[in-house]
Amino acid sequence: MSITTADDVRLTAALQYASDQKDQAIDSLKSFVRIPSISTEKSARPEMERAAAWVGGRLQQLGAQNVRTFQTEGAPIVYGELLKASPEKPTVLVYGHYDVQPVEPLGLWESLPFEPEVRGEHLFGRGASDMKGQILAVLTALDALAQTGGLPVNFKFMIEGEEEIGSPNLDKFIIEHKELLASDFALNPDAGMIGRDYPTITYGLRGLAYFEIQITGPDHDLHSGLFGGVVHNPAQVLCELIAGMHDASGRVTLPGFYDRVRQLEEAERDELRRLPVDEIYYRRQTGCSRFFGEEGYSLVERASARPTLEVNGLYSGFTGEGSKTVLPAKAMAKISCRLVPDQDPFEVREQLSQYLHDHTPPTVRSELTMHSAGYPSITNLDHFAVQAMQRALEATWGVRPLVRREGGSIPVVASMQKYLGIESVLTGFSLPEDNLHAPNEKLHLPTFERGVQALVRFFTYL
Amino acid sequence: MSITTADDVRLTAALQYASDQKDQAIDSLKSFVRIPSISTEKSARPEMERAAAWVGGRLQQLGAQNVRTFQTEGAPIVYGELLKASPEKPTVLVYGHYDVQPVEPLGLWESLPFEPEVRGEHLFGRGASDMKGQILAVLTALDALAQTGGLPVNFKFMIEGEEEIGSPNLDKFIIEHKELLASDFALNPDAGMIGRDYPTITYGLRGLAYFEIQITGPDHDLHSGLFGGVVHNPAQVLCELIAGMHDASGRVTLPGFYDRVRQLEEAERDELRRLPVDEIYYRRQTGCSRFFGEEGYSLVERASARPTLEVNGLYSGFTGEGSKTVLPAKAMAKISCRLVPDQDPFEVREQLSQYLHDHTPPTVRSELTMHSAGYPSITNLDHFAVQAMQRALEATWGVRPLVRREGGSIPVVASMQKYLGIESVLTGFSLPEDNLHAPNEKLHLPTFERGVQALVRFFTYL
Repeated sequence: MSITTADDVRLTAALQYASDQKDQAIDSLKSFVRIPSISTEKSARPEMERAAAWVGGRLQQLGAQNVRTFQTEGAPIVYGELLKASPEKPTVLVYGHYDVQPVEPLGLWESLPFEPEVRGEHLFGRGASDMKGQILAVLTALDALAQTGGLPVNFKFMIEGEEEIGSPNLDKFIIEHKELLASDFALNPDAGMIGRDYPTITYGLRGLAYFEIQITGPDHDLHSGLFGGVVHNPAQVLCELIAGMHDASGRVTLPGFYDRVRQLEEAERDELRRLPVDEIYYRRQTGCSRFFGEEGYSLVERASARPTLEVNGLYSGFTGEGSKTVLPAKAMAKISCRLVPDQDPFEVREQLSQYLHDHTPPTVRSELTMHSAGYPSITNLDHFAVQAMQRALEATWGVRPLVRREGGSIPVVASMQKYLGIESVLTGFSLPEDNLHAPNEKLHLPTFERGVQALVRFFTYL
Repeated sequence: MSITTADDVRLTAALQYASDQKDQAIDSLKSFVRIPSISTEKSARPEMERAAAWVGGRLQQLGAQNVRTFQTEGAPIVYGELLKASPEKPTVLVYGHYDVQPVEPLGLWESLPFEPEVRGEHLFGRGASDMKGQILAVLTALDALAQTGGLPVNFKFMIEGEEEIGSPNLDKFIIEHKELLASDFALNPDAGMIGRDYPTITYGLRGLAYFEIQITGPDHDLHSGLFGGVVHNPAQVLCELIAGMHDASGRVTLPGFYDRVRQLEEAERDELRRLPVDEIYYRRQTGCSRFFGEEGYSLVERASARPTLEVNGLYSGFTGEGSKTVLPAKAMAKISCRLVPDQDPFEVREQLSQYLHDHTPPTVRSELTMHSAGYPSITNLDHFAVQAMQRALEATWGVRPLVRREGGSIPVVASMQKYLGIESVLTGFSLPEDNLHAPNEKLHLPTFERGVQALVRFFTYL
């Protein structure tokens, strides 16, 4: 169109403002990354408070009202609201998390995880991409809009500190604050994109059921020379139990595991085939030359639309340098399942419990603990906010965004559907090569800047 | 006999002297235990030097000559000689090790491992029983003899500091010092006894082949949500490989593993059946209510006369508190085999290597390291020194000693047979409940005192 409207002028001004402020945005992000808010570490509690206070402070700088830090049994949840647009305008509930993954093995980091450093086009640091950088993108877009034509819609914020440990206290908070949180939809920028040239909206998320299995045999560590051959070795039993959890075709053997799995429709499989994610992509991301998985499904399907069972950790006996001839008293595994609609994490717990009951030999004892549970979810692609995001991404990148299902888990999406009755728009500007959950996490700064521009457009288009 | 000989008088005096000196012996042992000479820890090198110097100092106090500390690539070896008896008298090569096992998990110790403490009838501390206490028993017996009638035979000492890591530098030392070490037989008090009322001579020892297996998949730790289901999980592969190392009847599946195993004769099985080691014994020692192992063999046979493969350690991914959704890049296992005559630890390495070659899937890489190797051995029960030890134990405990095969490994016994052409008399005064290689290691002091008495008699009877 050749006609320039007042809206266009405001949008152009906001985009320019955001562009001009990019150095300040990165400085602000650095100060956020410097807070080591690792939610798995109970001793990091004061850091969680600091990170929550940082978020609350930034919301207040933006002019947010009713900014509150809600204490939970774990890390606090930050709430705030910017209800300055007309009441007829929609209210967006911005979701985010200020907690980050653990950093070990520390020796593999090229710069310290909590001393953010720009090298080339990247900002390195734990949380730079997942997801302190994503929160900053939203705050920067809002600041640009506020400083130019004003905020076009209304906002509420719910920024939690326990996403990386499965959000154990979030559901309770949502249930107890339904009215406070009432909104038209949620924006969740924690879902990332497929590649720097592929803006992406995620419409399906896998759920998570995270377990710890402990096998106990003798009542203390034994000398493997004196008792080897007689005492059933808990580490061997654990390995045998884990080995039995997949069959030869790569399928999970827990009883009933696939009963509730929604089969992929042919039309959806066609869509997924269009994603630019082939074996070469996976080779580049992982360093693997050959892949594995459930027979009958493509790599993309296995990684996003099919359920899995993975070993996340193993520990038993002597793991130091050299040799120690111990027959360990105990062996531990961390095991998690990614779930797809309509699996239920608590049913999976029962299935794993049944499997252990059926297969643990009488020579040892097994103990099962569930560390976190999140339901899988599917978002409606026809929702007005999803449509606005598609337009905003296309206007920014110049290509039609991809829609995909995601292999990771964002349980809050299912919780918001369930308790607040709202859909989530899932996007984000983290890249697969950002080393999320690994050493040398990094944020691609040009993509971050484009993300800010896309968010400015998105809020304007609503 | 009612006739009292001069020898009897001397023996009685030495026994009395040893009895009178027991408090001093325990004080001396405490000072030895206080040195944290953990051979698995490379950083403990200065402690190894201190422990070696402690041994050398005690030998000099006894009047030993030519006391030397030989440096090796690892911990030093202490040599000394007491050649004061007539040259026609036999020369005993006393073997011992001053190194101790690691102490983790430290939290399970009731008193600190290197702050020895007497509680009830026990001295608690790492190395109190294995085998600083056993070395002290020999030194105390020699002191009693030296202070009363004089030493009845000649002695050489070879006290090493790397037994707990498989004595990697001992064979080279023995080969290079054959003349210095030339003796009539060796005394090795590292073999323990079956129970406090069962003095024991060990005539068979299992060998050891200790390995580390590393499985490597992706080139860095991955997010299990993004890549689970596509990347073959190294921890899962490791578990599958370990699970395949035993068949359903408890036999080891490495190709050719049993080819060289000397079958047990019926007569020997009859002897082993006489040992007071039944299922109740194993329950008491281990806290297990049910046992496991190779079909067709008794518990005693499985633990001493049959080869085994045990997992000594497992490590992969996230092992901290709570949950981390990592798909680990690597997984590690420590695995060791106990070997019986005529198995060869280097052949077993080839068998394990072949097994890994045959069973490692093409999606990952496996790497095998051998940490230590020791041959199994059998000692001749008709040897004059074994006969003298049988008499000494019987005179001290008032019961005929038991003879047994031992499940543990003392590779030096095979090395001495091979390079010095001498047999070893294997006994010792550690008990199965002493928590060797485990938290709360302890020495039973009344048994220690009897051990000293038995050694005084043994040296006199030679």
